[in-house]
Amino acid sequence: MQRNIEVCLTPALIGLYDITESIVVVIDILRATSSIVYGIENGATSIIPVAQVEECLSYADQGYLLAAERNGEVVPGYDFGNSPFSYTAEKVSGKTVVLTTTNGTKALQLARPNASQVVIGAFLNLDALCEWLKTQDKNVLLLCAGWKDQFNLEDTVFAGAVVSALRDTFSMADDASVAAADLYQLAKDDLRAFIGKSSHSHRMAALNIEKDVAFCLQLNTCQAIPVLEGERLVRLKTV
Amino acid sequence: MQRNIEVCLTPALIGLYDITESIVVVIDILRATSSIVYGIENGATSIIPVAQVEECLSYADQGYLLAAERNGEVVPGYDFGNSPFSYTAEKVSGKTVVLTTTNGTKALQLARPNASQVVIGAFLNLDALCEWLKTQDKNVLLLCAGWKDQFNLEDTVFAGAVVSALRDTFSMADDASVAAADLYQLAKDDLRAFIGKSSHSHRMAALNIEKDVAFCLQLNTCQAIPVLEGERLVRLKTV
Repeated sequence: MQRNIEVCLTPALIGLYDITESIVVVIDILRATSSIVYGIENGATSIIPVAQVEECLSYADQGYLLAAERNGEVVPGYDFGNSPFSYTAEKVSGKTVVLTTTNGTKALQLARPNASQVVIGAFLNLDALCEWLKTQDKNVLLLCAGWKDQFNLEDTVFAGAVVSALRDTFSMADDASVAAADLYQLAKDDLRAFIGKSSHSHRMAALNIEKDVAFCLQLNTCQAIPVLEGERLVRLKTV
Repeated sequence: MQRNIEVCLTPALIGLYDITESIVVVIDILRATSSIVYGIENGATSIIPVAQVEECLSYADQGYLLAAERNGEVVPGYDFGNSPFSYTAEKVSGKTVVLTTTNGTKALQLARPNASQVVIGAFLNLDALCEWLKTQDKNVLLLCAGWKDQFNLEDTVFAGAVVSALRDTFSMADDASVAAADLYQLAKDDLRAFIGKSSHSHRMAALNIEKDVAFCLQLNTCQAIPVLEGERLVRLKTV
């Protein structure tokens, strides 16, 4: 079949898309989906995304790691937030993490009820993700988590990277995919400089997490594709 | 004061912006706002944007011209739709037009209740609009009408043209303004080719209105800035 690829620029627009037959790729480059990819790559058994901070707490007595971020900072009292450096093998291997973040977990919750399948994308697993998507006989919706329902640059540029990789085998079905691919072409030779123009990057600078940003912009350091199974993100078994 | 410029990529996102102190520029390049600029330039007394086709009819006995477009075509029984060639001086000079379109008039209706002021932008009046905005001590929100709440390329590229013209005197306050300006830089040397990549352009091709598209992409053929006064768009009096 002719497969379509589309880009949903913010979670506020998800209702415009029919995703019942689509693989939805959730994208929150700074930093939720980068950290999820890194955590699953490093052997986390599963990561449970929840929308509310309070939901995290309900898992407290099950021996899970509790991770909660709001407005870029770790919520006081939690094990950690969404810095990728909290998702090293030492910290997460063999463990389950319950995670809530400002934008990324909300996007996941929106996609979950209707999508054919929900997977996690980041620059860290770009090639592995694209190679797998090519083997699936499904349409693809790239869902940018954005920032509080607003468009953001880094998630869109990543969506453009995926569109650029898949454009020979998929049809770009909306203007957002065309724009995202163009922005990626502008950005790709110096991702850090391009994304430095973004408002979120300024927020990050204020939080003094430049190391996190640099980490999240690395290409293809991971092979893992996290996939939603029920309420849990686990490592997709690719053949 | 330091003035901000922001870009709302689709009407579905308007609720994210506080526009009470902002001038909102409504943008529906193909074709509503291009035709409105051209009609006001050509001496239309006023243009009344209404959201529903049925509302047009309620003006039928007042001697107004009735214009209704849905999905790119003139609604049967109406004087005309939103082709700019229906807005020549011969047709509209001294007349009032009641207009409803798929996207543009909806965006206008959304902006009207809250904005400090609502004006109309198109490539046809780009320079006149930007020069006037520079003289106003207000923030600016560029509201792209899009296509049925989806992002579209031509409205975003126009928003980027305005951002590019104003970036020295305004602060780009969101990532959408950064992206729009970048897309305009890619597009500006051959607007027609760039916008030819858009989904709406394909719809237009199917409607056989290539002449309309070329017309709407002309730069600075008009000086008029339509402004909303009450329920009517009239020519803004600039000094």
